Amino acid sequence: MSGIAVVYHSGYGHTKRIAGLVAEGAGAALIEIDAQGEISAEGWDTLNAAKTIVFGSPTYMGNSSWQFRKFAEATSKIWYTRGWQNKLFAGFSNSASPVGDKTLTIESLQILASQHGGVWISLGMLPSNTKAATSADVNQLGGSVGLLVQSPSDASVDEIPEGGLKTAVEFGRRIAEVSGRYTLA
Amino acid sequence: MSGIAVVYHSGYGHTKRIAGLVAEGAGAALIEIDAQGEISAEGWDTLNAAKTIVFGSPTYMGNSSWQFRKFAEATSKIWYTRGWQNKLFAGFSNSASPVGDKTLTIESLQILASQHGGVWISLGMLPSNTKAATSADVNQLGGSVGLLVQSPSDASVDEIPEGGLKTAVEFGRRIAEVSGRYTLA
Amino acid sequence: MSGIAVVYHSGYGHTKRIAGLVAEGAGAALIEIDAQGEISAEGWDTLNAAKTIVFGSPTYMGNSSWQFRKFAEATSKIWYTRGWQNKLFAGFSNSASPVGDKTLTIESLQILASQHGGVWISLGMLPSNTKAATSADVNQLGGSVGLLVQSPSDASVDEIPEGGLKTAVEFGRRIAEVSGRYTLA
Amino acid sequence: MSGIAVVYHSGYGHTKRIAGLVAEGAGAALIEIDAQGEISAEGWDTLNAAKTIVFGSPTYMGNSSWQFRKFAEATSKIWYTRGWQNKLFAGFSNSASPVGDKTLTIESLQILASQHGGVWISLGMLPSNTKAATSADVNQLGGSVGLLVQSPSDASVDEIPEGGLKTAVEFGRRIAEVSGRYTLA
Repeated sequence: MSGIAVVYHSGYGHTKRIAGLVAEGAGAALIEIDAQGEISAEGWDTLNAAKTIVFGSPTYMGNSSWQFRKFAEATSKIWYTRGWQNKLFAGFSNSASPVGDKTLTIESLQILASQHGGVWISLGMLPSNTKAATSADVNQLGGSVGLLVQSPSDASVDEIPEGGLKTAVEFGRRIAEVSGRYTLA
Repeated sequence: MSGIAVVYHSGYGHTKRIAGLVAEGAGAALIEIDAQGEISAEGWDTLNAAKTIVFGSPTYMGNSSWQFRKFAEATSKIWYTRGWQNKLFAGFSNSASPVGDKTLTIESLQILASQHGGVWISLGMLPSNTKAATSADVNQLGGSVGLLVQSPSDASVDEIPEGGLKTAVEFGRRIAEVSGRYTLA
Repeated sequence: MSGIAVVYHSGYGHTKRIAGLVAEGAGAALIEIDAQGEISAEGWDTLNAAKTIVFGSPTYMGNSSWQFRKFAEATSKIWYTRGWQNKLFAGFSNSASPVGDKTLTIESLQILASQHGGVWISLGMLPSNTKAATSADVNQLGGSVGLLVQSPSDASVDEIPEGGLKTAVEFGRRIAEVSGRYTLA
Repeated sequence: MSGIAVVYHSGYGHTKRIAGLVAEGAGAALIEIDAQGEISAEGWDTLNAAKTIVFGSPTYMGNSSWQFRKFAEATSKIWYTRGWQNKLFAGFSNSASPVGDKTLTIESLQILASQHGGVWISLGMLPSNTKAATSADVNQLGGSVGLLVQSPSDASVDEIPEGGLKTAVEFGRRIAEVSGRYTLA
């Protein structure tokens, strides 16, 4: 057991695919926030037991989805009792534009982790930003705080650019590697 | 008719009271986002007809409430058809701590307005930040992008500090004053 | 006279080229912040007389350049005396990656304008974010709060992608159009 | 040797006092960024050898000081060669208002750490935000991502409220405690 859990909401399947790749790279458990903003009792148990929690949300109208926010608000009792204090955290977001205000979403995931007394794992990869760079390259968007993925507005789940997919797997591996350096208790 | 509408969500009544004071200062219509994140058909008509839209949300776990986010996502068709292009916008947030990550909420309201092609009215008041300043003073928290209000965690709706209440009314007046300088169409 | 002034810093010429195009679209005066973070006395006069001020800075290591920040700090007396109260403002940033944390720079420009009691003009353009979109398209990065431009890390000033250049001119035109709707005094 | 270094800029001495208290709590080395935005060669050696780097800056006009930004830009070669990859980081800011846009400064410190591939230590303390809370309490402002301190605009260095001072020492202790859980190499 890696002790890593990825908890995410996905509206149309793109963020779900990314979540799966991050979890694959990290050897992590996957917990889906449903269309009503809920997770299962078993999901809460997994999060409470985890050493590392990875948050994932699409960016809609410049922020995380309401279902992700409903989940975030449901952690307020855990926050008050410091149940997740000192855990490791990381995060990712997907939207249709290269920028598309995903930064605000990632900042809000980082703040949520910080309110819980967490320690945050950054993306940790240089950008691929020369003239020759393409959407098949790792971190072509130039993220830093977390993983940013672009899925064009008319791209199906099968058409997410290759660079986003590769970056997701590599980010998962990094999360596992950094988690291995850290002792929670 | 001022052409100004305040649309807000309130979980426990504090943000509702602030919304009422902003609306009083501005001579604005009030539209409440309900516990399911919905507004009435008449509310949508009022927003579509308004010259100036003011967004209000509590800050919970470092971001706007999920009900406000659900409302924000429901504006995506208006966004795509540019229905609110060039309108004036402003925003406010309430939470239990002086800072309490309200800034992220206000930034997200500003981004929502910007995605709609809006023009944003700042708070526009110097802070009251000397040693002698108290919670009865105008803009004692030192906000700038929008109105920030603190309601201590054990304060009832009747116990919101006076400075927050006064700043809300003054902000409403400013919104009306700036709106008067602007021609929408 | 348009009453619009663009004040910017440029480290290697890319942001200078963008500033020139925004100014061309807006019919604006151009004020360069030099390598020491200074502008001329005439530059200050132009800013004080302007109806609309546009801030521009490259993004270096995730924030605006130190020269831009030195300029921003030099406005503190104007801030305290409310010399720029109610002026219109807008902003732009250039960096080597599509995202590259330009959002933080734009947010800080928006906050600076808000501290001055300003009214902020957003980018106001839908993103070009389909599978067919290229760097020759308008707002291909998907900005909203301000103008975002990517100049790849090995691109000369002459090699800024066409979409960034076109968006800059169009943004300048929008700034002039919105300024025309507004009465400062 | 704790392996912790605090690197900060201070304009008027308030941030310097806070930096000293954080360093005292953490058992850390202190490195001052001077009025020209420079640190000594020895300072660079200390940073390069550290396991944990703590950034500190005042907030002026809504962002970190230009001297801090000049220092941040000077780390770009280290960034490119990944010299600080996987180090631990934390941050703090001081300004005259309770909010006063310190959040933007802290976010920019967090982004700088993330660009370097860092792992970020949050403040990790519940807020003191009841009606009975005073400026003598720990985390009375309600920070989360980093340490926030308010020094009223007319307060001398000796008059920084007690809560800010206590929170600084406690934050230093937390940084040392979390650093002890982590293996850099």
